Amino acid sequence: MSIRVVTISRQFGSGGRTIAKMVAEKLGFDYYDRELVSKIAKESGLAEDYIIEQGEYATVRNSFLFDLSLGAAASSGTRSLSDQLYVIQHNIIKDLAEKGNCVIIGRCADHILAKREDALHVFCYADMQFRQKHLLEKYGETNEKPEKRLKEKDDKRKVYYKHYTGEDWGMPKNYNLCLDTGKIGLEQCADLIVQIVQNS
Amino acid sequence: MSIRVVTISRQFGSGGRTIAKMVAEKLGFDYYDRELVSKIAKESGLAEDYIIEQGEYATVRNSFLFDLSLGAAASSGTRSLSDQLYVIQHNIIKDLAEKGNCVIIGRCADHILAKREDALHVFCYADMQFRQKHLLEKYGETNEKPEKRLKEKDDKRKVYYKHYTGEDWGMPKNYNLCLDTGKIGLEQCADLIVQIVQNS
Repeated sequence: MSIRVVTISRQFGSGGRTIAKMVAEKLGFDYYDRELVSKIAKESGLAEDYIIEQGEYATVRNSFLFDLSLGAAASSGTRSLSDQLYVIQHNIIKDLAEKGNCVIIGRCADHILAKREDALHVFCYADMQFRQKHLLEKYGETNEKPEKRLKEKDDKRKVYYKHYTGEDWGMPKNYNLCLDTGKIGLEQCADLIVQIVQNS
Repeated sequence: MSIRVVTISRQFGSGGRTIAKMVAEKLGFDYYDRELVSKIAKESGLAEDYIIEQGEYATVRNSFLFDLSLGAAASSGTRSLSDQLYVIQHNIIKDLAEKGNCVIIGRCADHILAKREDALHVFCYADMQFRQKHLLEKYGETNEKPEKRLKEKDDKRKVYYKHYTGEDWGMPKNYNLCLDTGKIGLEQCADLIVQIVQNS
């Protein structure tokens, strides 16, 4: 079993988080989603709610990748709070992957760990109909129309991903496996991922 | 087993054709690649080599989708030869899917059969290193550098797909499953597809 890390990126409402949990359970891997937030909170001294929010919103300024290219020499004082947070979570994700046997949800983990041969990068998506149904089942009705909520969340993830990686979110080349969870089914998606890890 | 049709689109050199053959064999499905070309040749009276060429090159004029929207009433006399060919192969692909139990390679079959619930649409891709190696193993050395050949073929498929579907080639939303064949391995990719069909 050479794959020791699974990253799961997902469209909102695709069931990617449920799949990630199943994969972690079936493989006996650690699961990092909320757990990752706690680690970041501990390291940064910031509130968990703020970190959750920052994981989907980004203060867009195009200089972040340029900043990073300056390396550790760049003073953290010149960076926005969300950019500083990204650096902290970037380092935590790298440390977690180094330890291995884990499933990491979102937060550009696919990009941060792109060069690791022992990582499998998965993208979960589904059509609007499936995602709307999943959203309603999971979170119930709200004042906002499901389609609008889904679009807003996706847009935020796109902006966040672009800002911190310079790449377009959800393109196959950034993943090893892209799954239409509505067509394939959540349980089967988890089984396919587990199978690939176990056969590696 | 509710999935009766598998379409496989692929980056050149990703091994998608090999995977398609394995899937057809394992499922006992008919396999349409060269066989599709023969059918189109028979129906159009054109040479097979010409049809193969046209399957990757397109005479780009933006009016094709507009033409199609006019339906059967539009005179075929106003269409380019490649556009007329597309209409013939479009109809053949629809007929084949109707009969079912088949694997169809390329030729925008994913788009043509997008609305069929009994179809599974797969996209195969891999990184440049794997595709170069695969290309050399399969077709040997040529005067042209492998990277250039791969890029040219991909570009042609992109143009062809855009011309006839109005969409961008290789985006997850057009497929149910996208596989990094270099990471997952050709045999395992075939197994995953077969599994999804058999569990459907």
